[in-house]
Amino acid sequence: MRLSKEQLEQFDRDGYLFFPGLFTAGEISLLAGEVPQLYARREAYNVREKDSDAVRTNFAAHMYSEPFARLARHPRMVGPVMDLFGEAVYMHQFKINGKMAFAGDVWQWHQDYGTWLNDDMMPTERAMNVAIFLDDVNEYNGPLMFIPGSHKKGVIEARHDLTTTSYPLWTVDDALIARLVERAGGKNGGIVSPKGPAGSMILFHSCLVHASSSNLSPWNRVSVYLSLCAVSNHIRRFQRPEYIAHRDFAPIECLPDDCLLKAYPVQLPWKDGVPASALQTSPVPIEEMRKAA
Amino acid sequence: MRLSKEQLEQFDRDGYLFFPGLFTAGEISLLAGEVPQLYARREAYNVREKDSDAVRTNFAAHMYSEPFARLARHPRMVGPVMDLFGEAVYMHQFKINGKMAFAGDVWQWHQDYGTWLNDDMMPTERAMNVAIFLDDVNEYNGPLMFIPGSHKKGVIEARHDLTTTSYPLWTVDDALIARLVERAGGKNGGIVSPKGPAGSMILFHSCLVHASSSNLSPWNRVSVYLSLCAVSNHIRRFQRPEYIAHRDFAPIECLPDDCLLKAYPVQLPWKDGVPASALQTSPVPIEEMRKAA
Repeated sequence: MRLSKEQLEQFDRDGYLFFPGLFTAGEISLLAGEVPQLYARREAYNVREKDSDAVRTNFAAHMYSEPFARLARHPRMVGPVMDLFGEAVYMHQFKINGKMAFAGDVWQWHQDYGTWLNDDMMPTERAMNVAIFLDDVNEYNGPLMFIPGSHKKGVIEARHDLTTTSYPLWTVDDALIARLVERAGGKNGGIVSPKGPAGSMILFHSCLVHASSSNLSPWNRVSVYLSLCAVSNHIRRFQRPEYIAHRDFAPIECLPDDCLLKAYPVQLPWKDGVPASALQTSPVPIEEMRKAA
Repeated sequence: MRLSKEQLEQFDRDGYLFFPGLFTAGEISLLAGEVPQLYARREAYNVREKDSDAVRTNFAAHMYSEPFARLARHPRMVGPVMDLFGEAVYMHQFKINGKMAFAGDVWQWHQDYGTWLNDDMMPTERAMNVAIFLDDVNEYNGPLMFIPGSHKKGVIEARHDLTTTSYPLWTVDDALIARLVERAGGKNGGIVSPKGPAGSMILFHSCLVHASSSNLSPWNRVSVYLSLCAVSNHIRRFQRPEYIAHRDFAPIECLPDDCLLKAYPVQLPWKDGVPASALQTSPVPIEEMRKAA
Protein backbone atom coordinates (compact mmCIF):
# COMPACT_ATOMS: atom_id res chain seq x y z
CA MET A 1 0.00 0.00 0.00
CA ARG A 2 1.43 3.36 -1.04
CA LEU A 3 0.37 6.77 0.25
CA SER A 4 -0.98 9.50 -2.05
CA LYS A 5 0.42 13.03 -2.18
CA GLU A 6 -2.67 14.23 -0.31
CA GLN A 7 -2.11 11.66 2.43
CA LEU A 8 1.53 12.66 2.81
CA GLU A 9 0.51 16.33 3.10
CA GLN A 10 -2.24 15.48 5.56
CA PHE A 11 0.17 13.51 7.70
CA ASP A 12 2.62 16.39 7.69
CA ARG A 13 -0.09 18.89 8.71
CA ASP A 14 -2.15 16.86 11.22
CA GLY A 15 0.34 14.26 12.42
CA TYR A 16 -1.90 11.26 11.73
CA LEU A 17 -3.71 9.29 9.01
CA PHE A 18 -6.83 7.19 9.56
CA PHE A 19 -7.69 4.12 7.47
CA PRO A 20 -11.20 2.90 8.48
CA GLY A 21 -11.77 -0.83 7.95
CA LEU A 22 -8.33 -1.49 6.44
CA PHE A 23 -8.29 -5.09 7.67
CA THR A 24 -11.28 -7.37 7.11
CA ALA A 25 -13.45 -8.91 9.80
CA GLY A 26 -11.96 -12.32 8.92
CA GLU A 27 -8.41 -11.07 9.38
CA ILE A 28 -9.19 -9.32 12.65
CA SER A 29 -11.03 -12.29 14.17
CA LEU A 30 -7.86 -14.40 13.81
CA LEU A 31 -5.96 -11.82 15.86
CA ALA A 32 -8.70 -11.04 18.38
CA GLY A 33 -9.25 -14.75 19.05
CA GLU A 34 -5.68 -15.04 20.31
CA VAL A 35 -5.94 -12.24 22.86
CA PRO A 36 -7.72 -13.95 25.79
CA GLN A 37 -5.09 -16.70 26.14
CA LEU A 38 -2.27 -14.14 25.83
CA TYR A 39 -3.87 -11.92 28.50
CA ALA A 40 -4.41 -14.92 30.79
CA ARG A 41 -0.67 -15.55 31.14
CA ARG A 42 1.00 -14.56 34.39
CA GLU A 43 4.11 -13.09 32.76
CA ALA A 44 6.05 -9.87 33.18
CA TYR A 45 4.96 -8.82 29.68
CA ASN A 46 1.34 -8.49 30.85
CA VAL A 47 0.92 -5.21 32.75
CA ARG A 48 -2.39 -5.11 34.64
CA GLU A 49 -4.60 -2.15 35.61
CA LYS A 50 -3.96 -0.42 38.93
CA ASP A 51 -7.40 -1.18 40.36
CA SER A 52 -8.25 -4.52 38.71
CA ASP A 53 -6.86 -7.72 37.26
CA ALA A 54 -7.67 -6.63 33.68
CA VAL A 55 -4.68 -6.39 31.35
CA ARG A 56 -3.71 -2.84 30.43
CA THR A 57 -0.86 -3.74 28.06
CA ASN A 58 0.57 -6.95 26.68
CA PHE A 59 4.07 -6.60 25.25
CA ALA A 60 5.92 -8.34 22.44
CA ALA A 61 3.23 -10.81 21.28
CA HIS A 62 4.95 -10.95 17.87
CA MET A 63 7.79 -12.81 19.59
CA TYR A 64 5.61 -15.70 20.82
CA SER A 65 2.24 -15.66 18.96
CA GLU A 66 2.00 -16.69 15.29
CA PRO A 67 -0.90 -14.44 14.21
CA PHE A 68 0.75 -11.39 15.73
CA ALA A 69 4.15 -12.33 14.31
CA ARG A 70 2.52 -12.23 10.88
CA LEU A 71 0.79 -8.93 11.61
CA ALA A 72 4.20 -7.48 12.49
CA ARG A 73 5.26 -8.20 8.88
CA HIS A 74 2.07 -7.06 7.15
CA PRO A 75 2.61 -4.96 4.02
CA ARG A 76 -0.60 -2.93 4.57
CA MET A 77 0.91 -1.75 7.83
CA VAL A 78 4.65 -1.61 7.11
CA GLY A 79 4.36 -0.20 3.55
CA PRO A 80 2.96 3.24 4.40
CA VAL A 81 5.48 3.69 7.21
CA MET A 82 8.41 2.95 4.90
CA ASP A 83 6.80 5.39 2.45
CA LEU A 84 6.84 8.13 5.05
CA PHE A 85 10.43 7.48 6.18
CA GLY A 86 11.95 6.45 2.84
CA GLU A 87 13.92 3.85 4.75
CA ALA A 88 13.64 0.32 6.12
CA VAL A 89 12.14 0.00 9.61
CA TYR A 90 12.46 -2.35 12.56
CA MET A 91 10.01 -3.16 15.36
CA HIS A 92 10.77 -0.98 18.36
CA GLN A 93 7.69 -1.82 20.43
CA PHE A 94 4.71 -4.15 20.07
CA LYS A 95 1.73 -3.82 22.39
CA ILE A 96 -1.80 -5.15 22.63
CA ASN A 97 -3.55 -2.57 24.80
CA GLY A 98 -6.63 -3.82 26.60
CA LYS A 99 -8.78 -0.84 27.60
CA MET A 100 -11.18 -3.52 28.74
CA ALA A 101 -14.90 -3.04 29.30
CA PHE A 102 -15.65 -1.37 32.68
CA ALA A 103 -11.97 -1.62 33.72
CA GLY A 104 -9.86 0.24 31.14
CA ASP A 105 -8.16 3.20 32.79
CA VAL A 106 -6.95 6.51 31.36
CA TRP A 107 -3.71 7.16 29.51
CA GLN A 108 -2.66 10.72 30.35
CA TRP A 109 -1.60 13.16 27.60
CA HIS A 110 1.84 12.22 26.31
CA GLN A 111 4.11 11.89 23.30
CA ASP A 112 5.56 8.45 22.74
CA TYR A 113 8.83 9.85 21.51
CA GLY A 114 9.38 11.55 24.86
CA THR A 115 9.62 8.13 26.48
CA TRP A 116 11.79 6.66 23.74
CA LEU A 117 14.20 9.58 24.01
CA ASN A 118 14.34 9.73 27.79
CA ASP A 119 14.39 6.02 28.49
CA ASP A 120 15.76 4.39 25.34
CA MET A 121 18.02 7.15 23.91
CA MET A 122 16.35 6.99 20.49
CA PRO A 123 18.26 9.69 18.54
CA THR A 124 15.42 11.37 16.58
CA GLU A 125 11.64 11.17 16.12
CA ARG A 126 11.93 8.96 13.02
CA ALA A 127 9.68 6.29 14.51
CA MET A 128 6.00 5.77 13.77
CA ASN A 129 3.06 4.69 15.86
CA VAL A 130 0.53 2.36 14.32
CA ALA A 131 -2.80 1.56 15.99
CA ILE A 132 -4.90 -1.32 14.68
CA PHE A 133 -8.39 -1.74 16.18
CA LEU A 134 -9.27 -5.31 17.21
CA ASP A 135 -12.67 -4.06 18.47
CA ASP A 136 -15.06 -1.41 17.21
CA VAL A 137 -14.10 1.97 18.64
CA ASN A 138 -16.84 4.44 19.59
CA GLU A 139 -17.14 7.51 21.80
CA TYR A 140 -17.96 5.38 24.84
CA ASN A 141 -15.10 2.89 25.04
CA GLY A 142 -12.19 5.27 25.54
CA PRO A 143 -11.01 6.13 22.02
CA LEU A 144 -7.59 7.61 21.32
CA MET A 145 -7.62 11.42 21.38
CA PHE A 146 -5.13 13.48 19.35
CA ILE A 147 -4.24 17.16 19.30
CA PRO A 148 -3.83 17.73 15.53
CA GLY A 149 -0.57 19.38 14.56
CA SER A 150 0.94 18.97 18.02
CA HIS A 151 3.79 16.91 16.52
CA LYS A 152 5.15 20.16 15.05
CA LYS A 153 6.25 21.22 18.54
CA GLY A 154 8.92 18.51 18.49
CA VAL A 155 9.88 17.06 21.84
CA ILE A 156 7.96 18.64 24.68
CA GLU A 157 9.13 18.85 28.25
CA ALA A 158 7.53 16.06 30.26
CA ARG A 159 7.40 14.71 33.78
CA HIS A 160 7.60 11.06 34.73
CA ASP A 161 4.13 10.04 35.94
CA LEU A 162 4.52 7.04 38.24
CA THR A 163 1.24 7.33 40.13
CA THR A 164 -1.82 7.92 37.91
CA THR A 165 -1.94 4.46 36.34
CA SER A 166 -0.04 1.18 36.49
CA TYR A 167 2.32 2.00 33.60
CA PRO A 168 4.99 4.73 33.99
CA LEU A 169 4.79 7.43 31.33
CA TRP A 170 6.45 10.75 30.51
CA THR A 171 3.41 13.03 30.49
CA VAL A 172 2.87 16.63 29.35
CA ASP A 173 1.71 19.33 31.74
CA ASP A 174 -1.85 20.70 31.69
CA ALA A 175 -1.11 24.32 30.77
CA LEU A 176 0.80 23.27 27.67
CA ILE A 177 -1.97 20.86 26.61
CA ALA A 178 -4.48 23.70 26.92
CA ARG A 179 -2.30 25.92 24.68
CA LEU A 180 -1.81 23.17 22.07
CA VAL A 181 -5.54 22.42 21.93
CA GLU A 182 -6.33 26.13 21.57
CA ARG A 183 -3.80 26.50 18.75
CA ALA A 184 -5.34 23.47 16.99
CA GLY A 185 -8.80 25.05 16.95
CA GLY A 186 -10.07 24.86 20.53
CA LYS A 187 -13.54 23.38 20.66
CA ASN A 188 -13.58 23.31 16.84
CA GLY A 189 -11.18 20.49 16.09
CA GLY A 190 -8.56 21.08 18.79
CA ILE A 191 -9.06 17.48 19.85
CA VAL A 192 -10.00 14.66 17.47
CA SER A 193 -10.63 10.98 18.07
CA PRO A 194 -10.79 8.67 15.07
CA LYS A 195 -13.55 6.10 15.58
CA GLY A 196 -14.47 3.15 13.38
CA PRO A 197 -14.97 -0.59 13.03
CA ALA A 198 -12.56 -3.29 14.10
CA GLY A 199 -9.87 -3.54 11.43
CA SER A 200 -9.32 0.21 11.18
CA MET A 201 -5.75 1.53 11.35
CA ILE A 202 -4.24 4.83 12.46
CA LEU A 203 -0.69 5.96 11.71
CA PHE A 204 0.46 8.71 14.02
CA HIS A 205 3.63 10.69 14.45
CA SER A 206 5.77 9.79 17.45
CA CYS A 207 5.59 13.43 18.63
CA LEU A 208 1.80 13.70 18.27
CA VAL A 209 0.34 14.40 21.71
CA HIS A 210 -2.34 11.85 22.57
CA ALA A 211 -4.37 10.44 25.46
CA SER A 212 -7.36 8.24 26.08
CA SER A 213 -10.12 8.26 28.66
CA SER A 214 -11.37 5.43 30.81
CA ASN A 215 -13.69 2.78 29.38
CA LEU A 216 -16.90 2.55 31.43
CA SER A 217 -18.79 0.88 28.57
CA PRO A 218 -19.55 -2.85 28.29
CA TRP A 219 -17.40 -3.01 25.13
CA ASN A 220 -13.74 -3.97 25.16
CA ARG A 221 -11.51 -1.68 23.14
CA VAL A 222 -8.49 -3.88 22.42
CA SER A 223 -5.98 -2.36 19.99
CA VAL A 224 -2.56 -3.35 18.71
CA TYR A 225 -0.02 -0.54 18.97
CA LEU A 226 3.16 -1.04 17.01
CA SER A 227 6.07 1.35 16.94
CA LEU A 228 8.21 1.09 13.85
CA CYS A 229 11.57 2.82 13.98
CA ALA A 230 13.76 3.77 11.01
CA VAL A 231 16.69 1.34 11.14
CA SER A 232 19.26 4.16 11.21
CA ASN A 233 17.45 5.63 14.23
CA HIS A 234 17.71 2.58 16.50
CA ILE A 235 17.83 3.05 20.25
CA ARG A 236 21.18 3.61 21.95
CA ARG A 237 20.46 2.31 25.45
CA PHE A 238 18.88 -0.83 26.92
CA GLN A 239 17.46 0.76 30.05
CA ARG A 240 14.11 -0.99 29.70
CA PRO A 241 13.53 -4.74 29.34
CA GLU A 242 13.72 -6.07 25.80
CA TYR A 243 10.03 -7.03 25.78
CA ILE A 244 9.26 -3.31 26.07
CA ALA A 245 11.99 -1.81 23.85
CA HIS A 246 13.33 -4.27 21.29
CA ARG A 247 17.03 -4.74 20.56
CA ASP A 248 16.90 -6.46 17.17
CA PHE A 249 17.44 -3.70 14.61
CA ALA A 250 17.14 -5.91 11.51
CA PRO A 251 14.78 -4.47 8.87
CA ILE A 252 11.28 -5.97 8.78
CA GLU A 253 10.79 -8.19 5.74
CA CYS A 254 7.16 -8.09 4.69
CA LEU A 255 5.06 -11.17 4.01
CA PRO A 256 2.42 -11.22 1.23
CA ASP A 257 -0.83 -9.30 1.68
CA ASP A 258 -2.80 -12.42 2.64
CA CYS A 259 -0.42 -13.31 5.45
CA LEU A 260 -3.07 -13.13 8.20
CA LEU A 261 -5.22 -15.71 6.43
CA LYS A 262 -2.50 -18.11 5.25
CA ALA A 263 -0.01 -19.85 7.51
CA TYR A 264 3.24 -18.43 6.14
CA PRO A 265 6.04 -19.63 8.41
CA VAL A 266 7.38 -17.11 10.93
CA GLN A 267 10.02 -17.36 13.64
CA LEU A 268 8.83 -17.21 17.26
CA PRO A 269 12.05 -16.74 19.23
CA TRP A 270 10.26 -16.40 22.61
CA LYS A 271 7.82 -19.26 22.03
CA ASP A 272 9.20 -21.19 25.01
CA GLY A 273 9.57 -18.18 27.28
CA VAL A 274 11.28 -14.82 27.52
CA PRO A 275 15.05 -15.35 27.78
CA ALA A 276 16.80 -14.03 30.88
CA SER A 277 18.89 -11.67 28.73
CA ALA A 278 15.71 -9.83 27.69
CA LEU A 279 15.11 -8.85 31.29
CA GLN A 280 18.61 -7.47 31.80
CA THR A 281 18.79 -3.70 31.62
CA SER A 282 21.50 -1.08 31.87
CA PRO A 283 21.61 2.69 32.31
CA VAL A 284 24.84 2.79 30.28
CA PRO A 285 24.61 3.60 26.53
CA ILE A 286 25.34 0.67 24.18
CA GLU A 287 28.44 2.35 22.75
CA GLU A 288 30.05 2.72 26.16
CA MET A 289 29.10 -0.85 27.04
CA ARG A 290 30.86 -2.02 23.88
CA LYS A 291 33.99 0.04 24.62
CA ALA A 292 34.11 -1.36 28.13
CA ALA A 293 33.73 -4.94 26.89
CA MET B 1 -42.88 25.75 30.62
CA ARG B 2 -45.26 22.84 29.98
CA LEU B 3 -44.39 19.49 28.36
CA SER B 4 -46.07 18.26 25.19
CA LYS B 5 -47.73 14.86 24.85
CA GLU B 6 -44.75 13.70 22.75
CA GLN B 7 -42.33 14.79 25.47
CA LEU B 8 -44.29 12.97 28.15
CA GLU B 9 -44.26 9.80 26.02
CA GLN B 10 -40.57 10.17 25.28
CA PHE B 11 -39.78 10.56 28.96
CA ASP B 12 -41.78 7.47 29.78
CA ARG B 13 -40.00 5.42 27.08
CA ASP B 14 -36.41 6.69 27.36
CA GLY B 15 -36.27 8.00 30.92
CA TYR B 16 -34.92 11.43 30.00
CA LEU B 17 -35.64 14.65 28.10
CA PHE B 18 -33.01 16.99 26.68
CA PHE B 19 -33.52 20.75 26.24
CA PRO B 20 -30.48 22.20 24.39
CA GLY B 21 -29.76 25.85 25.15
CA LEU B 22 -32.77 26.28 27.48
CA PHE B 23 -31.02 29.01 29.48
CA THR B 24 -29.30 31.93 27.74
CA ALA B 25 -25.59 32.70 27.82
CA GLY B 26 -26.35 35.76 29.95
CA GLU B 27 -28.27 33.71 32.51
CA ILE B 28 -25.60 31.03 32.68
CA SER B 29 -22.71 33.46 33.07
CA LEU B 30 -24.31 34.80 36.27
CA LEU B 31 -24.30 31.29 37.70
CA ALA B 32 -20.91 30.18 36.34
CA GLY B 33 -19.25 33.34 37.65
CA GLU B 34 -20.17 32.35 41.19
CA VAL B 35 -18.61 28.89 41.05
CA PRO B 36 -14.89 29.65 41.61
CA GLN B 37 -15.49 31.40 44.96
CA LEU B 38 -17.85 28.62 46.06
CA TYR B 39 -15.32 25.93 45.11
CA ALA B 40 -12.52 27.81 46.89
CA ARG B 41 -14.20 27.45 50.29
CA ARG B 42 -12.76 24.90 52.72
CA GLU B 43 -16.11 23.57 53.88
CA ALA B 44 -17.58 20.11 54.37
CA TYR B 45 -19.99 20.79 51.50
CA ASN B 46 -17.10 20.82 49.00
CA VAL B 47 -16.05 17.23 48.21
CA ARG B 48 -12.71 17.11 46.39
CA GLU B 49 -11.37 14.56 43.88
CA LYS B 50 -9.44 11.56 45.21
CA ASP B 51 -6.21 12.44 43.40
CA SER B 52 -6.36 16.23 43.29
CA ASP B 53 -7.59 19.37 45.00
CA ALA B 54 -10.21 19.98 42.31
CA VAL B 55 -13.82 20.05 43.56
CA ARG B 56 -15.87 17.03 42.53
CA THR B 57 -19.14 18.15 44.10
CA ASN B 58 -20.34 21.25 45.89
CA PHE B 59 -23.51 20.75 47.91
CA ALA B 60 -26.41 23.02 48.81
CA ALA B 61 -25.30 26.26 47.11
CA HIS B 62 -28.96 27.35 46.99
CA MET B 63 -28.77 27.73 50.78
CA TYR B 64 -25.93 30.30 50.72
CA SER B 65 -25.55 31.72 47.17
CA GLU B 66 -28.10 34.14 45.72
CA PRO B 67 -27.87 33.20 42.04
CA PHE B 68 -28.24 29.50 42.84
CA ALA B 69 -31.06 30.17 45.30
CA ARG B 70 -32.92 31.79 42.41
CA LEU B 71 -32.10 28.93 40.04
CA ALA B 72 -33.61 26.54 42.61
CA ARG B 73 -36.93 28.38 42.11
CA HIS B 74 -36.79 28.76 38.33
CA PRO B 75 -40.06 27.99 36.50
CA ARG B 76 -38.27 26.65 33.39
CA MET B 77 -36.75 23.97 35.59
CA VAL B 78 -39.45 23.33 38.22
CA GLY B 79 -42.44 23.57 35.83
CA PRO B 80 -41.75 20.45 33.73
CA VAL B 81 -41.00 18.39 36.84
CA MET B 82 -44.32 19.33 38.42
CA ASP B 83 -45.93 18.47 35.07
CA LEU B 84 -44.45 14.99 35.20
CA PHE B 85 -45.40 14.33 38.84
CA GLY B 86 -48.69 16.24 38.96
CA GLU B 87 -47.70 17.39 42.42
CA ALA B 88 -45.67 20.05 44.21
CA VAL B 89 -41.97 19.28 44.70
CA TYR B 90 -39.28 20.14 47.24
CA MET B 91 -35.50 20.31 46.85
CA HIS B 92 -34.00 17.00 47.96
CA GLN B 93 -30.44 17.60 46.76
CA PHE B 94 -28.56 20.47 45.13
CA LYS B 95 -25.11 19.89 43.66
CA ILE B 96 -22.66 21.76 41.47
CA ASN B 97 -20.52 18.98 40.02
CA GLY B 98 -17.08 20.02 38.85
CA LYS B 99 -15.74 17.43 36.41
CA MET B 100 -12.89 19.90 36.06
CA ALA B 101 -10.48 20.07 33.13
CA PHE B 102 -7.72 17.42 33.42
CA ALA B 103 -8.89 16.42 36.93
CA GLY B 104 -12.53 15.32 36.71
CA ASP B 105 -12.80 11.66 37.67
CA VAL B 106 -15.36 9.02 36.68
CA TRP B 107 -18.79 8.45 38.19
CA GLN B 108 -19.47 4.73 38.00
CA TRP B 109 -22.80 3.40 36.65
CA HIS B 110 -25.53 4.00 39.20
CA GLN B 111 -29.14 4.98 39.79
CA ASP B 112 -29.65 7.96 42.04
CA TYR B 113 -32.77 6.50 43.56
CA GLY B 114 -30.75 3.54 44.83
CA THR B 115 -28.85 5.92 47.10
CA TRP B 116 -31.93 7.83 48.18
CA LEU B 117 -33.70 4.60 49.08
CA ASN B 118 -30.78 2.93 50.83
CA ASP B 119 -29.44 5.96 52.67
CA ASP B 120 -32.38 8.35 52.99
CA MET B 121 -35.39 5.97 53.05
CA MET B 122 -37.17 7.84 50.25
CA PRO B 123 -40.36 5.78 49.82
CA THR B 124 -40.72 5.68 45.99
CA GLU B 125 -38.94 6.84 42.87
CA ARG B 126 -41.09 9.99 42.56
CA ALA B 127 -38.05 12.28 42.50
CA MET B 128 -36.49 13.82 39.41
CA ASN B 129 -32.94 14.60 38.42
CA VAL B 130 -32.23 17.83 36.61
CA ALA B 131 -28.87 18.61 35.02
CA ILE B 132 -28.12 22.15 33.87
CA PHE B 133 -24.88 22.70 31.93
CA LEU B 134 -22.79 25.66 33.09
CA ASP B 135 -20.16 24.78 30.45
CA ASP B 136 -20.41 23.43 26.93
CA VAL B 137 -20.53 19.63 27.00
CA ASN B 138 -18.80 17.65 24.26
CA GLU B 139 -17.54 14.11 23.82
CA TYR B 140 -14.18 14.99 25.36
CA ASN B 141 -15.09 16.51 28.73
CA GLY B 142 -16.80 13.55 30.34
CA PRO B 143 -20.48 13.92 29.36
CA LEU B 144 -23.28 12.12 31.21
CA MET B 145 -24.03 8.72 29.70
CA PHE B 146 -27.49 7.13 29.97
CA ILE B 147 -28.84 3.67 29.21
CA PRO B 148 -32.20 4.56 27.63
CA GLY B 149 -35.16 2.76 29.14
CA SER B 150 -33.15 1.45 32.08
CA HIS B 151 -35.50 3.27 34.50
CA LYS B 152 -38.12 0.63 33.65
CA LYS B 153 -36.17 -1.91 35.66
CA GLY B 154 -37.12 -0.07 38.84
CA VAL B 155 -34.67 -0.31 41.71
CA ILE B 156 -31.66 -2.43 40.84
CA GLU B 157 -29.49 -4.27 43.30
CA ALA B 158 -26.38 -2.23 44.00
CA ARG B 159 -23.19 -2.37 46.02
CA HIS B 160 -21.75 0.47 48.06
CA ASP B 161 -18.64 1.66 46.23
CA LEU B 162 -16.36 3.35 48.76
CA THR B 163 -13.06 3.05 46.86
CA THR B 164 -13.29 4.07 43.19
CA THR B 165 -13.71 7.79 43.76
CA SER B 166 -13.94 10.23 46.63
CA TYR B 167 -17.74 10.13 46.89
CA PRO B 168 -19.53 6.97 48.14
CA LEU B 169 -22.13 5.64 45.72
CA TRP B 170 -24.44 2.64 45.37
CA THR B 171 -23.24 1.28 42.01
CA VAL B 172 -24.63 -1.37 39.65
CA ASP B 173 -22.65 -4.48 38.73
CA ASP B 174 -21.01 -4.90 35.31
CA ALA B 175 -22.95 -7.93 34.05
CA LEU B 176 -26.28 -6.19 34.61
CA ILE B 177 -25.05 -3.02 32.88
CA ALA B 178 -24.02 -5.12 29.87
CA ARG B 179 -27.51 -6.68 29.73
CA LEU B 180 -29.29 -3.32 30.03
CA VAL B 181 -27.14 -1.78 27.28
CA GLU B 182 -27.79 -4.78 25.02
CA ARG B 183 -31.53 -4.54 25.62
CA ALA B 184 -31.44 -0.81 24.80
CA GLY B 185 -29.88 -1.45 21.39
CA GLY B 186 -26.27 -2.42 22.06
CA LYS B 187 -23.90 -0.39 19.92
CA ASN B 188 -26.92 1.18 18.20
CA GLY B 189 -28.24 3.47 20.91
CA GLY B 190 -27.68 1.30 23.97
CA ILE B 191 -25.77 4.22 25.48
CA VAL B 192 -26.54 7.88 24.75
CA SER B 193 -24.89 11.06 25.98
CA PRO B 194 -26.72 14.35 25.41
CA LYS B 195 -24.20 17.04 24.45
CA GLY B 196 -24.78 20.73 23.87
CA PRO B 197 -23.98 24.32 24.79
CA ALA B 198 -23.89 25.80 28.26
CA GLY B 199 -27.47 26.48 29.32
CA SER B 200 -28.80 23.11 28.16
CA MET B 201 -30.93 21.11 30.58
CA ILE B 202 -31.62 17.40 31.00
CA LEU B 203 -34.46 15.92 33.04
CA PHE B 204 -33.84 12.29 33.92
CA HIS B 205 -35.71 9.66 35.88
CA SER B 206 -34.30 8.83 39.30
CA CYS B 207 -34.05 5.14 38.27
CA LEU B 208 -32.27 5.87 34.96
CA VAL B 209 -28.86 4.18 35.06
CA HIS B 210 -26.12 6.71 34.30
CA ALA B 211 -22.37 7.28 34.54
CA SER B 212 -19.71 9.64 33.29
CA SER B 213 -16.13 9.20 32.23
CA SER B 214 -13.09 11.16 33.32
CA ASN B 215 -12.35 14.59 31.86
CA LEU B 216 -8.88 14.69 30.30
CA SER B 217 -9.75 17.71 28.15
CA PRO B 218 -8.74 21.31 28.89
CA TRP B 219 -12.43 22.24 29.24
CA ASN B 220 -14.24 22.30 32.58
CA ARG B 221 -17.60 20.56 32.56
CA VAL B 222 -19.38 22.16 35.50
CA SER B 223 -23.06 21.21 35.82
CA VAL B 224 -25.76 21.86 38.37
CA TYR B 225 -27.58 18.70 39.42
CA LEU B 226 -30.82 19.23 41.26
CA SER B 227 -33.02 16.50 42.62
CA LEU B 228 -36.64 17.49 43.06
CA CYS B 229 -38.79 15.16 45.11
CA ALA B 230 -42.59 15.02 45.16
CA VAL B 231 -43.59 16.50 48.51
CA SER B 232 -45.59 13.40 49.50
CA ASN B 233 -42.48 11.30 48.83
CA HIS B 234 -40.15 13.07 51.26
CA ILE B 235 -37.31 11.14 52.87
CA ARG B 236 -37.95 9.24 56.10
CA ARG B 237 -34.45 9.18 57.61
CA PHE B 238 -31.71 11.74 58.24
CA GLN B 239 -28.76 9.39 57.90
CA ARG B 240 -26.78 11.81 55.75
CA PRO B 241 -25.94 15.43 56.60
CA GLU B 242 -28.58 17.97 55.67
CA TYR B 243 -26.34 19.63 53.09
CA ILE B 244 -26.49 16.36 51.13
CA ALA B 245 -30.11 15.31 51.73
CA HIS B 246 -32.35 18.22 52.62
CA ARG B 247 -34.90 18.13 55.43
CA ASP B 248 -37.17 21.03 54.47
CA PHE B 249 -40.12 19.47 52.65
CA ALA B 250 -41.94 22.74 51.90
CA PRO B 251 -43.06 23.00 48.24
CA ILE B 252 -40.85 25.13 46.00
CA GLU B 253 -42.52 28.43 45.09
CA CYS B 254 -41.35 29.52 41.68
CA LEU B 255 -40.06 33.02 40.90
CA PRO B 256 -40.79 34.72 37.57
CA ASP B 257 -39.04 33.54 34.39
CA ASP B 258 -36.48 36.37 34.48
CA CYS B 259 -35.36 35.53 38.02
CA LEU B 260 -31.74 34.85 37.07
CA LEU B 261 -31.38 38.32 35.56
CA LYS B 262 -33.31 40.35 38.15
CA ALA B 263 -32.52 40.47 41.84
CA TYR B 264 -35.74 39.05 43.27
CA PRO B 265 -35.23 38.61 47.01
CA VAL B 266 -34.51 35.08 48.23
CA GLN B 267 -33.77 33.67 51.66
CA LEU B 268 -30.24 32.36 52.27
CA PRO B 269 -30.56 30.46 55.56
CA TRP B 270 -26.93 29.22 55.52
CA LYS B 271 -25.40 32.50 54.43
CA ASP B 272 -23.38 32.76 57.63
CA GLY B 273 -22.43 29.09 57.78
CA VAL B 274 -23.92 25.64 57.93
CA PRO B 275 -25.72 25.18 61.28
CA ALA B 276 -24.50 22.41 63.58
CA SER B 277 -27.89 20.70 63.34
CA ALA B 278 -27.36 20.15 59.59
CA LEU B 279 -24.35 17.99 60.36
CA GLN B 280 -26.21 15.79 62.84
CA THR B 281 -27.29 12.45 61.41
CA SER B 282 -29.16 9.43 62.67
CA PRO B 283 -29.72 5.87 61.46
CA VAL B 284 -33.15 5.90 63.09
CA PRO B 285 -36.21 6.70 60.91
CA ILE B 286 -37.85 10.09 61.58
CA GLU B 287 -41.08 8.49 62.76
CA GLU B 288 -39.34 6.44 65.43
CA MET B 289 -37.31 9.49 66.46
CA ARG B 290 -40.58 11.42 66.90
CA LYS B 291 -42.16 8.63 68.92
CA ALA B 292 -39.13 8.46 71.15
CA ALA B 293 -39.11 12.22 71.65
